[in-house]
Amino acid sequence: MSYSAPTKQMQFLLDHVVGMADVAALPGYEDATPDIVAAILEEAGKFASEVLAPLNWEGDQQGAKWSEEGVTTPDGWKEAYTQFAEAGWNGLAFSPEHGGQGMPGLLSAAVQEMWHSSNMAFGLCPLLTQGAVHAIASHATDELKQAYLEKMVSGLWTGTMNLTEPQAGSDLAAVRATATPEGDHYLVKGQKIFITYGDHDMTENTIHLVLARTPDAPEGVKGISLFVVPKFLLNADGTPGARNDARCVSIEHKLGIHASPTCVMSFGDNEGAVGYLVGEENRGLMYMFTMMNEARLAVGIEGYAVAEMAYQRALAFARDRKQGPVLLGQDTDVTGIVNHPDVRRMLMTMRSQIEVARVMAYDCAAAFDFAGHHADAEVREKFKRRGELLTPIVKGWSTEVGVELCSLGVQIHGGMGFIEETGAAQHLRDSRITPIYEGTTGIQANDLLGRKTMYDGGQGVDELLADMRITQDALAASGNPDAAAANLALTISIDQISNVSQLLLKEENPAVAAAAASDYLMLMGYATGSWAMSRVVLATEQLEDKAFASLQLALAKFYFDKIAPHAGAHFLAIENGQADYYQIDQAIL
Amino acid sequence: MSYSAPTKQMQFLLDHVVGMADVAALPGYEDATPDIVAAILEEAGKFASEVLAPLNWEGDQQGAKWSEEGVTTPDGWKEAYTQFAEAGWNGLAFSPEHGGQGMPGLLSAAVQEMWHSSNMAFGLCPLLTQGAVHAIASHATDELKQAYLEKMVSGLWTGTMNLTEPQAGSDLAAVRATATPEGDHYLVKGQKIFITYGDHDMTENTIHLVLARTPDAPEGVKGISLFVVPKFLLNADGTPGARNDARCVSIEHKLGIHASPTCVMSFGDNEGAVGYLVGEENRGLMYMFTMMNEARLAVGIEGYAVAEMAYQRALAFARDRKQGPVLLGQDTDVTGIVNHPDVRRMLMTMRSQIEVARVMAYDCAAAFDFAGHHADAEVREKFKRRGELLTPIVKGWSTEVGVELCSLGVQIHGGMGFIEETGAAQHLRDSRITPIYEGTTGIQANDLLGRKTMYDGGQGVDELLADMRITQDALAASGNPDAAAANLALTISIDQISNVSQLLLKEENPAVAAAAASDYLMLMGYATGSWAMSRVVLATEQLEDKAFASLQLALAKFYFDKIAPHAGAHFLAIENGQADYYQIDQAIL
Repeated sequence: MSYSAPTKQMQFLLDHVVGMADVAALPGYEDATPDIVAAILEEAGKFASEVLAPLNWEGDQQGAKWSEEGVTTPDGWKEAYTQFAEAGWNGLAFSPEHGGQGMPGLLSAAVQEMWHSSNMAFGLCPLLTQGAVHAIASHATDELKQAYLEKMVSGLWTGTMNLTEPQAGSDLAAVRATATPEGDHYLVKGQKIFITYGDHDMTENTIHLVLARTPDAPEGVKGISLFVVPKFLLNADGTPGARNDARCVSIEHKLGIHASPTCVMSFGDNEGAVGYLVGEENRGLMYMFTMMNEARLAVGIEGYAVAEMAYQRALAFARDRKQGPVLLGQDTDVTGIVNHPDVRRMLMTMRSQIEVARVMAYDCAAAFDFAGHHADAEVREKFKRRGELLTPIVKGWSTEVGVELCSLGVQIHGGMGFIEETGAAQHLRDSRITPIYEGTTGIQANDLLGRKTMYDGGQGVDELLADMRITQDALAASGNPDAAAANLALTISIDQISNVSQLLLKEENPAVAAAAASDYLMLMGYATGSWAMSRVVLATEQLEDKAFASLQLALAKFYFDKIAPHAGAHFLAIENGQADYYQIDQAIL
Repeated sequence: MSYSAPTKQMQFLLDHVVGMADVAALPGYEDATPDIVAAILEEAGKFASEVLAPLNWEGDQQGAKWSEEGVTTPDGWKEAYTQFAEAGWNGLAFSPEHGGQGMPGLLSAAVQEMWHSSNMAFGLCPLLTQGAVHAIASHATDELKQAYLEKMVSGLWTGTMNLTEPQAGSDLAAVRATATPEGDHYLVKGQKIFITYGDHDMTENTIHLVLARTPDAPEGVKGISLFVVPKFLLNADGTPGARNDARCVSIEHKLGIHASPTCVMSFGDNEGAVGYLVGEENRGLMYMFTMMNEARLAVGIEGYAVAEMAYQRALAFARDRKQGPVLLGQDTDVTGIVNHPDVRRMLMTMRSQIEVARVMAYDCAAAFDFAGHHADAEVREKFKRRGELLTPIVKGWSTEVGVELCSLGVQIHGGMGFIEETGAAQHLRDSRITPIYEGTTGIQANDLLGRKTMYDGGQGVDELLADMRITQDALAASGNPDAAAANLALTISIDQISNVSQLLLKEENPAVAAAAASDYLMLMGYATGSWAMSRVVLATEQLEDKAFASLQLALAKFYFDKIAPHAGAHFLAIENGQADYYQIDQAIL
């Protein structure tokens, strides 16, 4: 099954819905001209469909392999990665200061979707390098930057993030790995688990970013420091030299993303792994958060990217597969199940929510572009708040919905969907990790409700609502019937967000708030989805391609009618209150 | 991970919610005394946890294996099956006339759950035999009955159902397999796919029930006949003799239920497979429907049975796993994530919906018991309608929700859930087939809305609503605050079912009705769930175990507050109407 990048759809959303032009007008993004943006989308689409997509199924079947000598990736992966790096894809959104192309994060969001749609297990490798680059670029000494950044930006070396330990999971306060100072470096000791691409054979070096505690560090999260631990120590000329004492001791047997090695990493089994402190001691957690917003946005993109591939596969099958008399499209000669109303419902359920998730991710990426590049500090601050508010929604909602849609992709295939060779099942298996890693949905929900809503007294949410009301006014002014229908849906969404946020801001019992957080996150997703689709409706007025415009209007209307009502279920779940059922003794559950 | 049969929960629902005593009072069920019922649940629970559960994970890893000589099941399966048959479990609900124990289908529903919770891939084998037994018992000649029934009832031989062909899928009108009369039998030729346990090494014979066309049969579904095609032809003394020309030519590589061989069966590659006509020619489809309600109920049971195992695993993990400070249960020394509010929310989401699905399946099974055994023909007719109305809801809703809950079971494990060895992922993989086989959710939805609602002018739904209103009156009469909360939820559910059924009964465009069918099915599931939980609330008044009663009330309240609101989303999806978005040309999707 081939992948075809939805560049037309992307270009429409970038140009007419999220304002690519405004982002390109920011200082530092002068190169992101319309021509360049279009060319990059075009080329990325080609690379994804011609180089990455053909490796996806075979990569899943072969999987990554571990041996004493190290991890090997499936046939063709090393060559594809080399092409990927040589074509400059790895450095797309990195600063030109370190050899990147300095393109906006907004454009990078569109391009990343293509990597993950065509081959999520492959796309994870640059995703992790990106996080590591940001941590070093933002917090490390010039010496470390000079030694590592350019080669990681180009993709010559890859990066990893080593947070989790077996006993600690998501609770970083429980991290036990140690780092003992010795001369100009530290000796790192400890075991880390779930390390994506912790070892592989695609590049000559791998740079680990590792959380560990120095000897006198305070307990808990305030005693964690961040270290650069290269697989191969560097020679005086900067090339990889002696093997460091950091090894992958095993890889996991997983439900999906088989080709992406998930490593158990052991640091310092022998003489101690040489590590270099990033920034100051005990500030490691703060540095990790630098990477985390971006990594979470990237995983949110994965969520709908895999669903996009599942959609393309399901649509192709539904066009081809004949079964019983069809009820739609009798005037065409298409007799595939795509013309069964219930199959059409499933396909539009997929496509409309993928579109909403895409707009949300673009909004989030654009917000960070404004936050990083706008001339006015107050505007930067506002967009930072916006990006940080949207991040847990993009990560949480788009991955939860992404799994549902991949499951629907299986369903559309009927019995064939359950057969591995069909390919639909792989997308479901792959997607299932996205609501888990980089912080589970529960963690995103706590982040959204706690740190991003209650902590600032609802300022970020109020600003979002203000922007939604501007769209409301535009819909009211438009006067066309599609805009009126959108306005109805958007009004409900605004009321839901406003009421439920006020309700939760008043909540004083932390257990009650925590129990409501997941419903709050899902409500925010579905309701801001109405905002996204309202802007799509307005944007169609600018379109000359009438068939494409009518499809966009149909997807928007479908979303308002069939999908947005799910917000109401989560609204009621919160409003009905968090009764004493949570206090039932766990022993009798 | 051990499985522990929820016998206490089952016994409560059987005795106090669905009326086991009324079923046991039906003519023919005299043996189903309370003592016998309790003993059977107890023994079945033991067999499931001691014999079947230990084979589940290893069976998934080994999978069934194909060779020219036939299919082999994983280590220990043959022995377990022999024990299963020898203990008499296969014949539990079959008529004593053919060697069965004649227990009510209601009890059998409870017992079947245990097989599927502990080992779904194993449980499928008797599930298919059951369908085959019913087809033969209901429609075959005495000669065929005598030759096959007793050995299939005892489990000495297993049965299969051969409907699907590669080009036909769910569309039986397109069946092409042929059956040519020759003397006292027919020669059957053709290929069938997705044949569960089409070949295996656990028994000395396998009896295939095969749909095929006789030479002069009319086109479409009116020209299909049903045949018995044994793997080994019978000797004069009834023992298995010569190999018949029916072979498994390959097995599928599937997402889940790896130990259950899904066979491509080839009939008549050489001299033709000897088959015996069941009933009359051209009535095969009607005979298949005989089995189908029961098989669909059984798959609905699978849906929540797998979720029950996923729940038990997630609960055990959540009690054991420590991570960060807990917000609930501070007065106990349990610091596991079970005391994180969001984890508690997920666990109760699982348990409350499993309970609702269990009540629905019990109601459906009890209805068929009444339909088969009640002395009064009018009562039988009414309960037949009830069983047939509930069947697509049980099959459709409980399997869709079952997949969601198995996915939630993975989520509760965090990163560990994605690791195959943890076991949570297997439940998700296994469960994913349940909304597909025995008719996809779309097919169930069409059955529910078309044949079970519109076809009889809503009579079955009206009768259901009448029973729900009786519960409403009982809640109003009860006067305790839990009953008042239940009444609120039940009233909403009754209104939703009533309004939406009336709306759809008036719908004249078949495409619009078909597009609404899935939302109708899901609404019916969530809304009848409120009825189930309302009866649970009333039933707690009879309980002496106050801790157990408070758990039941907590689960019910959780369901009313958090789960039942999903009915509203499906209600709005239908009410918002089926606009022209379905008419968008599929070519631009």
